[in-house]
Amino acid sequence: MNPPIETPMAIGLSVSEAQTCILDRIVPLETEEIGLAQALGRALAEEVYANRDLPPYNVSAMDGFAVRAADLFEVPRTLQIIEDIKAGDTPRLTLQPGQCAKIMTGAPLPPGADTVVRVEDTRPLENDKAEFPISVKLGTDIRLRGENMRQSDVVLQAGEEITPAAISVLATVKRAKVKVARKPRVAILSNGDELEALDEPLDLRKIPDSNSHALMAQVQNLGIEPALLGIARDKPDELTSFLKRGLEYDILLISGGTSVGDHDYVRPTLAALNVVMHFWRVEMRPGHPIAFGTLGNAFVFCLPGNPVSSMVCFEQFVSPALRRLMGHRRLFRRTIPVRLAQAAKSRQGRIEFVRATLSRDTSGDYIATPDASQSSGDILSMTRADALLAVPSEHNGLAMGETAQAQLLETAMWQHSPNIEKIL
Amino acid sequence: MNPPIETPMAIGLSVSEAQTCILDRIVPLETEEIGLAQALGRALAEEVYANRDLPPYNVSAMDGFAVRAADLFEVPRTLQIIEDIKAGDTPRLTLQPGQCAKIMTGAPLPPGADTVVRVEDTRPLENDKAEFPISVKLGTDIRLRGENMRQSDVVLQAGEEITPAAISVLATVKRAKVKVARKPRVAILSNGDELEALDEPLDLRKIPDSNSHALMAQVQNLGIEPALLGIARDKPDELTSFLKRGLEYDILLISGGTSVGDHDYVRPTLAALNVVMHFWRVEMRPGHPIAFGTLGNAFVFCLPGNPVSSMVCFEQFVSPALRRLMGHRRLFRRTIPVRLAQAAKSRQGRIEFVRATLSRDTSGDYIATPDASQSSGDILSMTRADALLAVPSEHNGLAMGETAQAQLLETAMWQHSPNIEKIL
Repeated sequence: MNPPIETPMAIGLSVSEAQTCILDRIVPLETEEIGLAQALGRALAEEVYANRDLPPYNVSAMDGFAVRAADLFEVPRTLQIIEDIKAGDTPRLTLQPGQCAKIMTGAPLPPGADTVVRVEDTRPLENDKAEFPISVKLGTDIRLRGENMRQSDVVLQAGEEITPAAISVLATVKRAKVKVARKPRVAILSNGDELEALDEPLDLRKIPDSNSHALMAQVQNLGIEPALLGIARDKPDELTSFLKRGLEYDILLISGGTSVGDHDYVRPTLAALNVVMHFWRVEMRPGHPIAFGTLGNAFVFCLPGNPVSSMVCFEQFVSPALRRLMGHRRLFRRTIPVRLAQAAKSRQGRIEFVRATLSRDTSGDYIATPDASQSSGDILSMTRADALLAVPSEHNGLAMGETAQAQLLETAMWQHSPNIEKIL
Repeated sequence: MNPPIETPMAIGLSVSEAQTCILDRIVPLETEEIGLAQALGRALAEEVYANRDLPPYNVSAMDGFAVRAADLFEVPRTLQIIEDIKAGDTPRLTLQPGQCAKIMTGAPLPPGADTVVRVEDTRPLENDKAEFPISVKLGTDIRLRGENMRQSDVVLQAGEEITPAAISVLATVKRAKVKVARKPRVAILSNGDELEALDEPLDLRKIPDSNSHALMAQVQNLGIEPALLGIARDKPDELTSFLKRGLEYDILLISGGTSVGDHDYVRPTLAALNVVMHFWRVEMRPGHPIAFGTLGNAFVFCLPGNPVSSMVCFEQFVSPALRRLMGHRRLFRRTIPVRLAQAAKSRQGRIEFVRATLSRDTSGDYIATPDASQSSGDILSMTRADALLAVPSEHNGLAMGETAQAQLLETAMWQHSPNIEKIL
């Protein structure tokens, strides 16, 4: 009952060993240049430099008056308003003793001025004069040239994720286009005679093919539009031709057909196509029967047929692989520490990924409640989960009240209330 | 210096009051029907029902043999293999005493069988026979019909976010199309004579327009492609025509021009267009000079010109508004409790959103380190931040070691190492 494949293959790796086996074989894809409107969520493939000082000159940080601080050593004092400077203006006059200029936030300080007095700390008078009742420290409310960015400084590092803030920086240094690693091309193939395609009529003897759509969504969630190749039936020729098509992509995800059953043709057919399988079976639950192979630069993941197993394996293995191909440095889902509201079962020697919902206790700490159903066939339990609670392989279950790491799923990115004013 | 607008308008609301003021005016947009490939991240606008039992019949949970448990009361026992059943097959024969059927995971149990014995617990013999050395409990390794889903049950609720797991459920019940609230149409307008557009040549006297691109990315991050209207200069006619165009959208985001400066035309021009302003200035930092108004079903946000203030206001006010328009129930960014690695300054009476990076202490708890720069003009500090640490308004700063809530930004959705085996 061992797999009929003659290449060396590790069986029963730990999750961490399997991740290393995959990621050690992956480097970011070649680069391409894209516009800012397409750049969100990509990884920078170049350093980005400032093309200017920011602020470009000393500017006012407030609406008020540009003054010479020495004029306000003794207050109250009345100063003559000689100019009205707004953002984008070039001041025309130099402040002389006894003079001030009205100035708006972001407007350049006129020559001679060294301090800004906020408008609310002044009193308007007639004849272009203003009264200054209080003294102000030299340099107050001025943003100095180059304070936020200096020309030629590196402002973004290669490998950084292009977030909205990074887009802001790119626009600031006038980079309308930017170099990123290209997106991987991903193909998804289902297989099995028992599967019913989404566009096929309902047949109660069959099993609906949901995994290829879930995988599609998981790939889309990383910003990549995958190709759905369809369902290969259990005929060696058909499977061979589907697999050949799939191996033209950077990543081929195969759903189902990787267990030890006599009728599983996938792994022998991959072997016949010279795909080198690197591991099979990982010490985890759900997701045990995952397999991983390569053919040149193409990566093949054989994912379990059980819907929850397939999703969990994607998150642990495929998602980090895709993110590294895209040039990202942060490859893994965010984990947060949570306390168990009830015991979680697991078997020592394998990581158990427990579907759980999150809530808060009275002190604001997170509590995780394992879903009543942990069946790998129960996709509904996955729709209820905020997180995958990882029970480490050294444990034989966790007791109520113990702490574990919860991997945040999509639903957990958002919450019902702001939770910023109180600690709950 | 009060705003020259005659409609009632609240000044100096708390963040929470401002959020309520906005969200109380918003209901989800009308629905549309979309395909599964477009559905990720949308909110369901209908209940979804199961169209079948799953499993559709009693199936084997393992590769092995379907048996009558009574045959194995005394072991070892040899049984005759009468059939070979794989997933998608219909069993032809009924098991009689002394008989068994080879069966694959997911394959239907033959009539007469009540238990599955895993293949590794059996021994193959010649002449279509197998030996069973151990007894197995009645019902072992059978998944019962309807165990995961019963026909006509509600499997997804209206308002649920369409995650990859929900896509899986939709494919399972063969819903190729699904009803969702349509996406809001969003327009972004910058304004100010001092602004330099991305496609304009470098002019060191000007300020690059970065905010409209950052806002674009923040909107894209919610799955919406906004329209960039461009930069309105400080001429009332030009501004009026830009604002008229913008008010044809569901949401108009205006960057800059909302402070008390004499040269700010935005709010008076909005008033002339009959936009009702509901609030101006919110007790927060950065982001204080935000304003919000409505014209019929159109919502207008006047966002501060400082790049960090603009982004922070978007996250607190615009993002929840857009998510509610899309029909989502979880409107706010995930917060997690963190301990401060150093003191954070703030002024009692307003929430301070402190840019911070996240790390872990030796027990696995999160620590937040405030960025050295908290200037609202310093967009680079925002690219370094994992989270916005909220210092509640009742506090006058927080000391090192105190706990606060950290709102997770995009970068924080991913981390460098899996952190699932150890508690770090």
